[in-house]
Amino acid sequence: MQFELDRGSREPLYRQLAGSLQQRIRSGALPARTRLPTVRQLAQQLGVTRLTVHSAYAELQSVGWVEATVGRGTFVAERIEQLIAPPEAEFGREVTPGGMLSDILRMTQLPGLAALARADPAPEHYPLRNWQRACELALASGGPGLMNYTTAQGDLTLRSTLAEVVRERGVTAGPDELLVTAGVTNGLSLLTALLAPPGSTVLVEQPTYLGMLNILAARGVRAVGVPIDDDGLIIEALEDLLRVERPAFLYCMPTFQNPSGVCLTPARRASLLELATRRALTIVEDDIYGRLAYEGAPPHALKADDHSGQVIYLSSFSKSLMPGLRMGYVVAAPSMIKQLTLLRQAQDVCSPLLIQRALSVFIEQGWWHTHLRRMLPRYRERRDALLRAMERQFPMGVTWSRPRGGFSSWVSLPPGVPVTELYVSAIGRGVAFTPGQVFCAGAEDVPHMRLCFSVEPPERLADATVTLGALLRERGGSRSLPTPAIGEYVPVV
Amino acid sequence: MQFELDRGSREPLYRQLAGSLQQRIRSGALPARTRLPTVRQLAQQLGVTRLTVHSAYAELQSVGWVEATVGRGTFVAERIEQLIAPPEAEFGREVTPGGMLSDILRMTQLPGLAALARADPAPEHYPLRNWQRACELALASGGPGLMNYTTAQGDLTLRSTLAEVVRERGVTAGPDELLVTAGVTNGLSLLTALLAPPGSTVLVEQPTYLGMLNILAARGVRAVGVPIDDDGLIIEALEDLLRVERPAFLYCMPTFQNPSGVCLTPARRASLLELATRRALTIVEDDIYGRLAYEGAPPHALKADDHSGQVIYLSSFSKSLMPGLRMGYVVAAPSMIKQLTLLRQAQDVCSPLLIQRALSVFIEQGWWHTHLRRMLPRYRERRDALLRAMERQFPMGVTWSRPRGGFSSWVSLPPGVPVTELYVSAIGRGVAFTPGQVFCAGAEDVPHMRLCFSVEPPERLADATVTLGALLRERGGSRSLPTPAIGEYVPVV
Repeated sequence: MQFELDRGSREPLYRQLAGSLQQRIRSGALPARTRLPTVRQLAQQLGVTRLTVHSAYAELQSVGWVEATVGRGTFVAERIEQLIAPPEAEFGREVTPGGMLSDILRMTQLPGLAALARADPAPEHYPLRNWQRACELALASGGPGLMNYTTAQGDLTLRSTLAEVVRERGVTAGPDELLVTAGVTNGLSLLTALLAPPGSTVLVEQPTYLGMLNILAARGVRAVGVPIDDDGLIIEALEDLLRVERPAFLYCMPTFQNPSGVCLTPARRASLLELATRRALTIVEDDIYGRLAYEGAPPHALKADDHSGQVIYLSSFSKSLMPGLRMGYVVAAPSMIKQLTLLRQAQDVCSPLLIQRALSVFIEQGWWHTHLRRMLPRYRERRDALLRAMERQFPMGVTWSRPRGGFSSWVSLPPGVPVTELYVSAIGRGVAFTPGQVFCAGAEDVPHMRLCFSVEPPERLADATVTLGALLRERGGSRSLPTPAIGEYVPVV
Repeated sequence: MQFELDRGSREPLYRQLAGSLQQRIRSGALPARTRLPTVRQLAQQLGVTRLTVHSAYAELQSVGWVEATVGRGTFVAERIEQLIAPPEAEFGREVTPGGMLSDILRMTQLPGLAALARADPAPEHYPLRNWQRACELALASGGPGLMNYTTAQGDLTLRSTLAEVVRERGVTAGPDELLVTAGVTNGLSLLTALLAPPGSTVLVEQPTYLGMLNILAARGVRAVGVPIDDDGLIIEALEDLLRVERPAFLYCMPTFQNPSGVCLTPARRASLLELATRRALTIVEDDIYGRLAYEGAPPHALKADDHSGQVIYLSSFSKSLMPGLRMGYVVAAPSMIKQLTLLRQAQDVCSPLLIQRALSVFIEQGWWHTHLRRMLPRYRERRDALLRAMERQFPMGVTWSRPRGGFSSWVSLPPGVPVTELYVSAIGRGVAFTPGQVFCAGAEDVPHMRLCFSVEPPERLADATVTLGALLRERGGSRSLPTPAIGEYVPVV
């Protein structure tokens, strides 16, 4: 088996090797059930360390492309045909929030693709060893009962720990004001079921989290966008809208908004709370990125200053720890928590108790805070790498947000750039981004894209930006186009 | 600290000790943050082994009543007040499927209570060591990617394994016909959302799984009961109902039905499939107890003989392995799986990938089959102990089903027995059962109760039955009441 590895490349050798192997599997050169060389053989043949080969195999295993059996070796997966459907044909079929979410989730199976579409944490830094220790500690103390059902509201031990966690965001809540959810999406889904009947209206930032638009669409709820700018949600625009709309609630991310990364200013936070109290507007605050601040401490949550009880607060550990835990939470009044608990009970009974108790241990041991401290400089470095690369590689006429936190930048393209075509072409060249349209309520042909800088290391971000820059120049963008004004990344007013 | 332990009792010493400790904590004699004696001290003082004390402490820890800190000792939980609300006051407030489900889930926090209310597997036999090995093997092969999001449909590796699992129930399905769910409840919730709009009708066996009645109530769907007898669902009654009702689907458990434990006969299975085909009736088959057969091999699933595609099949590992995994699955046509996948995506994105992959490893290693083989004789023994004890302890006029599989017996009481009062009194005396009403669509004052024999060892089942027998004699039952006819445990026709 021959591979060409480029020792001068910024791409680590194991990734080059994983990519080459993937290419050969995709081409059919290595069909299902083919036995791969042993780690030792291939390392020797290529003149690389065994760790390099082992890491490449592990990357392919993690997505199910190869399977290892102790004592027998590593084989191309039996069901490989189902995994290697050509991505150009498989992706971009439906540029809706739901269709795009499916695309993004399927991309987790494609290790070769530069993952600028996924607002996920960096998997190579997952604190797996401490997580395993937390599970062991939880089991040693809790025993087999941790594999039982538990209450739908969630484990009291975890809720007590979460009460301490939200206190660090300025939010005071007792365990009876907390509901454990399977991520923020689950909390949003339950809240929508409780508060927004089919046919009702929910206000969202424009652009907003595509998962929320997907939930609203699935439940037959109308989403109306409120524009944002560099300072976050535009309060005057919200006030205007409230004169004509009677929304079930406003969904917003005041701190490091997805997809734009912008942060609501203190003055606007005060205005928003005042307006909400005056108009009896329920605010659903999604604080999932609240801890991921790269320039000093983040502002407190909006909920911290909510003296009239207008704000329902949600967050999770999907960005600040690991999404696979499926662990999030809602803070609301005890009466609302009770209603949400009954809905959760009728949805899937409860979240796994072992994960709940292990998460509590993980936090109480200080491992979550350690992990955050370790990750913030890394994400800052990645953000800087992406911003620098866009500066160098993107044609004139393209602008972008410069987030001080979160996982993504919102890129504004010259009008007329065929974003969906660009999306499919980029995947064909090994780079995934997210078309802007899926973040926008009721909008089509949105000349924007979201680029996430959290998953890939700086060198891969730079390479991906070269590819995207080339595509942009081919596909409509040109250095001679006029530069849009500041705030241009607001797509719809 | 003084404890009276009865060495002649059938109750293990550690359970007696845990019970005594619990009593003292409940009484306030051991308030929050009290340091308990060390294991060594207490073992010496009581003249028992350290394992006994350790097991008692572990049982209290598992439900959060005490907390252990390495090097500091074991303490009564800081938030103990929230856990020890007197159960007589806390339970039985709302005798509805939802209220009872909350009661049952909260009972998992009360180790002293004889758990005849919970249709759970026996926690002391959970295969924790093999489960941990499965997690380690999965992580060793899959790496950090297993803590990422995955597709809402579920991991392909697990779905391929599940395809083999359902084959053993006679069901042929490819991975594209499978959806991974967070337990059967989750599958039922998604199917109801897809197939039964608010205001529509769903047929259920009478009595049926209370979780399904809870889902239907939560979604505003009307449940109509079809009577059952010792041979399962009465087909003629279903046929009669279909003349007046146009149900979205029929929900049933043909194999070891919950709560009755009855099993649909081969002849009725054939009639049911014929009727479903003729009337274009969709059948939702819940096979959660299908593997838990105590007298020879269980019949194949109904889905096995479904040649016209009328049957949607669900099962899970909550009874046959551990409910805390929150792992179940749906088998349906690929087009329906796609729709359910989109709903799941808008509900909570996906199930934890690590648990999915570890479950696949667990099954592929043969550990699930080993566990089942080990558990079947134990459950058979428990069933026999309960049936024997009822024979001895229950007054005349009380009858019960004699299940050949599953986890529960359906007990018919003389009319007029105040079941809800009985329920609350029994909890006061340390025994929990489930009032029959919550298993019955549109019925009140149902003179039945469900007794589960799966959680408690034979001696605890016997003791609990003594308590229940005494209560039945006090509260309206008497040996002089007429014996109901066979099939009397059908509450509503």
